[in-house]
Amino acid sequence: MISQTAEYALRAAVFLAARTTDSPASAQEIAEATRVPVGYLQKILRTLARQDILTAHRGASGGFALAKVPSAISVLDVLKASDAPLQRIERCPLGIKGHTTLCSLHSLLDAELARAERSFASTSLSDLLDGPGGIRPLCDARGYFPVSIAGSRTGTSRPCPDPSE
Amino acid sequence: MISQTAEYALRAAVFLAARTTDSPASAQEIAEATRVPVGYLQKILRTLARQDILTAHRGASGGFALAKVPSAISVLDVLKASDAPLQRIERCPLGIKGHTTLCSLHSLLDAELARAERSFASTSLSDLLDGPGGIRPLCDARGYFPVSIAGSRTGTSRPCPDPSE
Repeated sequence: MISQTAEYALRAAVFLAARTTDSPASAQEIAEATRVPVGYLQKILRTLARQDILTAHRGASGGFALAKVPSAISVLDVLKASDAPLQRIERCPLGIKGHTTLCSLHSLLDAELARAERSFASTSLSDLLDGPGGIRPLCDARGYFPVSIAGSRTGTSRPCPDPSE
Repeated sequence: MISQTAEYALRAAVFLAARTTDSPASAQEIAEATRVPVGYLQKILRTLARQDILTAHRGASGGFALAKVPSAISVLDVLKASDAPLQRIERCPLGIKGHTTLCSLHSLLDAELARAERSFASTSLSDLLDGPGGIRPLCDARGYFPVSIAGSRTGTSRPCPDPSE
């Protein structure tokens, strides 16, 4: 449905949406919480910043933050801003001249893409944090983003929000 | 939504479903009509034959044919038989232990995959041939599968079915 790059972009956006502090998060911190290799993630973060989903902050305490409040950024916004958006089928992929509209095969495939696109457009990052089920993206049972790379938990800037708050 | 390999598998299946003759089609013939490089297509055809979507016939007049009537093969059957099926999300891709069910992000993504899966399961190859719109998969305006590789049209074994039939 979506590429690995798009999945990683969504994880990073959800991580930043869930943080309880306004200070930027470093690429290393985001990489740990999202379990994405930091080099790969840095490219994605820079792409999202170029597309105005994130703001990039330089300096020792620099990093990345959301450019808008989580309720103003949809899942589709993040996908479109990543290098791997959902690819709708706009014309015959075979280049058949007579196919001025999509054939039944490509209509079927594109209809599913259109449906997914509508669903992703109507879901904001805050919807994902407030969603039903009590299993928050990226958060483990103790309410913390799991740390998989550094192997230690400094923790103060990245507790998952308490669902009761 | 689906991979290039899956798209090519579907084109091949639709081509074989649309043929008006029961004799097998050669990989070369299928490659021309589906505009897929023949070497790549041969691998896909062999995979589909191993998964009982196609039958493979040896010899000078050999090739590939559908293993069942087109109404008995769904789009999902072809996707599942290809090396690139629709990948549902069955457990947390991050491996977070507390996530015994999917979080809201992966629930959203999987819900769209599930919806597409249901749609593909309920659409047969014959549905694609009989679908509305009059634009038949692979067929050009003159009612023929376009020939893009060999550059000539021998034609007798591959006219697209007449919509009025």
